[in-house]
Amino acid sequence: MTAWRLVEDDPAAEPGPVTRSDRPRPGGRRMLVVAAVVLLTLVGAGGLAAAGTGMFAERPDGCVKPDRSLQLYAVELPKDGTQIRLGYGLTPQTASYPGPTMEMMEGECLAITLHNQVPAETLAQLRTNPAHPLGVSLHVHGVKYTQQSDGTVQSASYVPPGESRTYTWYAAPRNNRTGSQGTAGYWWYHDHVVGGPHGTQGLSAGLFGGLVVRRPGDPKPDRTYVTAFGDRQSINLRRGEATDTCAAENPQPGPTCLVARKGERVEFIVVGIGNDMHTFHLHGHSWADTRTGVVSNGQPFADSVPVIDNKTLGPGDSFGVQVVAGDAVGPGHWMLHCHMQFHSDAGMSTMLHVLDENGQMPPGMDHQHPAAAPATAGTTSATATEGAAHQHN
Amino acid sequence: MTAWRLVEDDPAAEPGPVTRSDRPRPGGRRMLVVAAVVLLTLVGAGGLAAAGTGMFAERPDGCVKPDRSLQLYAVELPKDGTQIRLGYGLTPQTASYPGPTMEMMEGECLAITLHNQVPAETLAQLRTNPAHPLGVSLHVHGVKYTQQSDGTVQSASYVPPGESRTYTWYAAPRNNRTGSQGTAGYWWYHDHVVGGPHGTQGLSAGLFGGLVVRRPGDPKPDRTYVTAFGDRQSINLRRGEATDTCAAENPQPGPTCLVARKGERVEFIVVGIGNDMHTFHLHGHSWADTRTGVVSNGQPFADSVPVIDNKTLGPGDSFGVQVVAGDAVGPGHWMLHCHMQFHSDAGMSTMLHVLDENGQMPPGMDHQHPAAAPATAGTTSATATEGAAHQHN
Amino acid sequence: MTAWRLVEDDPAAEPGPVTRSDRPRPGGRRMLVVAAVVLLTLVGAGGLAAAGTGMFAERPDGCVKPDRSLQLYAVELPKDGTQIRLGYGLTPQTASYPGPTMEMMEGECLAITLHNQVPAETLAQLRTNPAHPLGVSLHVHGVKYTQQSDGTVQSASYVPPGESRTYTWYAAPRNNRTGSQGTAGYWWYHDHVVGGPHGTQGLSAGLFGGLVVRRPGDPKPDRTYVTAFGDRQSINLRRGEATDTCAAENPQPGPTCLVARKGERVEFIVVGIGNDMHTFHLHGHSWADTRTGVVSNGQPFADSVPVIDNKTLGPGDSFGVQVVAGDAVGPGHWMLHCHMQFHSDAGMSTMLHVLDENGQMPPGMDHQHPAAAPATAGTTSATATEGAAHQHN
Repeated sequence: MTAWRLVEDDPAAEPGPVTRSDRPRPGGRRMLVVAAVVLLTLVGAGGLAAAGTGMFAERPDGCVKPDRSLQLYAVELPKDGTQIRLGYGLTPQTASYPGPTMEMMEGECLAITLHNQVPAETLAQLRTNPAHPLGVSLHVHGVKYTQQSDGTVQSASYVPPGESRTYTWYAAPRNNRTGSQGTAGYWWYHDHVVGGPHGTQGLSAGLFGGLVVRRPGDPKPDRTYVTAFGDRQSINLRRGEATDTCAAENPQPGPTCLVARKGERVEFIVVGIGNDMHTFHLHGHSWADTRTGVVSNGQPFADSVPVIDNKTLGPGDSFGVQVVAGDAVGPGHWMLHCHMQFHSDAGMSTMLHVLDENGQMPPGMDHQHPAAAPATAGTTSATATEGAAHQHN
Repeated sequence: MTAWRLVEDDPAAEPGPVTRSDRPRPGGRRMLVVAAVVLLTLVGAGGLAAAGTGMFAERPDGCVKPDRSLQLYAVELPKDGTQIRLGYGLTPQTASYPGPTMEMMEGECLAITLHNQVPAETLAQLRTNPAHPLGVSLHVHGVKYTQQSDGTVQSASYVPPGESRTYTWYAAPRNNRTGSQGTAGYWWYHDHVVGGPHGTQGLSAGLFGGLVVRRPGDPKPDRTYVTAFGDRQSINLRRGEATDTCAAENPQPGPTCLVARKGERVEFIVVGIGNDMHTFHLHGHSWADTRTGVVSNGQPFADSVPVIDNKTLGPGDSFGVQVVAGDAVGPGHWMLHCHMQFHSDAGMSTMLHVLDENGQMPPGMDHQHPAAAPATAGTTSATATEGAAHQHN
Repeated sequence: MTAWRLVEDDPAAEPGPVTRSDRPRPGGRRMLVVAAVVLLTLVGAGGLAAAGTGMFAERPDGCVKPDRSLQLYAVELPKDGTQIRLGYGLTPQTASYPGPTMEMMEGECLAITLHNQVPAETLAQLRTNPAHPLGVSLHVHGVKYTQQSDGTVQSASYVPPGESRTYTWYAAPRNNRTGSQGTAGYWWYHDHVVGGPHGTQGLSAGLFGGLVVRRPGDPKPDRTYVTAFGDRQSINLRRGEATDTCAAENPQPGPTCLVARKGERVEFIVVGIGNDMHTFHLHGHSWADTRTGVVSNGQPFADSVPVIDNKTLGPGDSFGVQVVAGDAVGPGHWMLHCHMQFHSDAGMSTMLHVLDENGQMPPGMDHQHPAAAPATAGTTSATATEGAAHQHN
């Protein structure tokens, strides 16, 4: 076992207008190849997963002990057509995709114990390489965690089937002394090991969810929705009709039914997953391109902040949109879609249904909902069928 | 006809770390399918377009009556090769793509009466689904409008051939009480119904234009240009030579001739349309990544604002670029292009021609313009021919 | 030779809600075609390159004379497989890709003399059009330069094989009078002529590098790394194993070995090159989305600034990421990757190796490095082989 040591005799280490040679040092290539063989052997034997107890701290600096703890279950859900679906849940029975929306306050430390209840055979089916270990993990954006909670294969911080592991997240506050920029923001969490070293198959199966870290004084929404924009023109892994399952008689808010009363503050945690670029567009509403989606009149610089109603996002990006439902524009079925035309035409489109202050939709256009959603009217019958098939039941 | 009512008995409605089940409620699927049949029947009969007079307000809150009104015409223009071209114009004779650049002041309410003069047969040719209604609409970004002015099929706010409809746009000012973030910004307007429910065919035929909403005190440009970055490596739907038609003897500013005197404040309304990602890059000039493209020294936070000369934009995005032409760098033929290399190589490149203070181009490189534009020199003869064909005449 | 003159008799020149006709003026098309023929003749004869001595100023306004001067060499490097590689270097012997990282202070004027030592035959092989001139250039983002230093064919500011040319860059400070927004920021420089008029082949061969312009008072990093995200899932034109060549015994910082001690301030100049969209993601660390990557508590507006750990970038974009290595999270092998899943799976992934304060890596996971990088474990053997082949030696 070798010790890492930083050698400072390389002038390239100095910032500034210097030249950096990229010619490999003698022996460098050989060393890498040898190490790779060792790794694959260890990984193939499954010996690494249990090993993550080295000298790396369990908790990030600033978190003396967790303020709160949660149990989280990774389970297999009914297939969506032929597509394997996995979900995170606070109980195995309530697992879903997206998983439960997490909320933290800056300064808080949270311990989450992940129980991997996904059958080993299912994980094996999703594996792209027989040497890749079987497991599920919890990788998070934005908050602080040590290598023990990285949720990656290379840090051995994942959970083999049937086992459990506790991940510690610290919503570090701002600290000018250490240079910490704070962690308040709109983030997300996801698996990083199912199928391959980046969790690509875990993500596309449903192992992701939203996280919001608030700072004291932040505006508090009345409703929070997660909208993950992903591959195959999907929102929350659903397309076409399946993106809007609101029943007119009885709309129940949830990942496929976005509904609010006029005047309510609605928050979207917008996340990019998968491989494709998208844009998040909402009709009739706009938001400030700030940390919170809001900026207050009179606040310094407020006047220079862009207010937008369409924002590009790539995979891994996450941001918050806060709007006052129906402000100025009134109730209605307000479209929410990707503005890439072939994405919206293919069904990457849903609605924010804004009811009046009494929780009613004015009758004028009621007959047009929800089937009037462009996702429905615009898709061919083949697509509509496919959309329906995507919804597991 | 059913009344929408928000039922709050679902714990998932509460924000926070909750689980949201995505399992459809019993009957939900059946209800959607029935409603879809009703809709398509109505739409197929063309009966919906005239119906948009329900209980939704005509004007957004804050607009008691319009401060100003405009007539806008949607017309068919000469084909660009085999491509159907449509345009908006303040008169039928001056219709163009992009359409007329709109300018509003925050607080202003504008009524625009759209006259659909596009022949029904043309709209039928662009239709992707025979059940989709024929019509043209006006959908706008950023400003406020009710469902009556949404410009969508599902809100029945479009214009059948030969008919007219008045759209009301309200440039709502900032209002801390209601949470309004203000509407000052760089926006755009476009059709949302030609061809399909997202207006994809209307957009690609030319039915779009720029909108700028100013706040009192905003810097006022000497010139405003719209540059819509779109599919097939196009700027304002043109490629290669057709992106720069400035005549050396007599450059007339317009959508295909970007010209300014040194020291003039030039504003670009940059819009993403279609399906592709692009980046807007301008040689020799840079701008602040703020609402206005400008930031003033001494302004709080000014020091932390990124100044950029290249910005990624996806479809639906719009932003403003303000530069002082030739500041520090002097006159010249300054390239403006998408920095995706195969886009610029294929002709997604034009010039901002900066003349000296007397309106003259220094002679040194005069012989190189305009054919010296990389869009010309870099394209094969086949592409150049195609570029020429794209320009209708 | 014709003089450019701006004619203001076109009402379209006025900003506001006007209509702009895009119909070509009589004769406009013919004029363009004639000019194109003249240009291609001149370019074909190679007569234009030496001609760049017209009436355009040599230096931008504000730079009376250069404060500093550099010699820069463009040379051919050993092939990467079958791929031609070129590099910039402060000496011919130290040329590399990325080229040397340049650093300027706002207010500084820098003269860079570029010596083109790339053989004409190599440039001819990279040329996409036999009429395109042979040469190498230096085009820069963000700072100010006249047409004489634009580095383009159309401005005749490139360097034929065996010749030299001096480019002048001025890091103009903020100036409210002229409207200058300042030039402090994270930028890059690159060839704009190899292969075609946008330098596409020069860029993809390696002719690019990072530039940072600092403003007095900006935070000063302990280390600066350039990470150029490009085509074929590459970081600094390397994929898979080749993105991380750190030797455990003796990690030497450089473009393929990102290493720092806990507590050091590390700066990344992140650049998008080529054709593809990417996202820059770093595990365990986050940064403020500001000009410097930093925002100070108590600074006006600081509370509204997004802190992010993933950022989308398109070709031509560049931004700065500043993090305090290991802050709160401790030492470890922190993944740095594109979050587009198929990009990271294909090897667009490396590590920031954070050692402890003594320059040691805690032993717990030491055996996992560097081959444990997901780029290694996740690629098939075919890809791994290809990755190795990409590394010239």
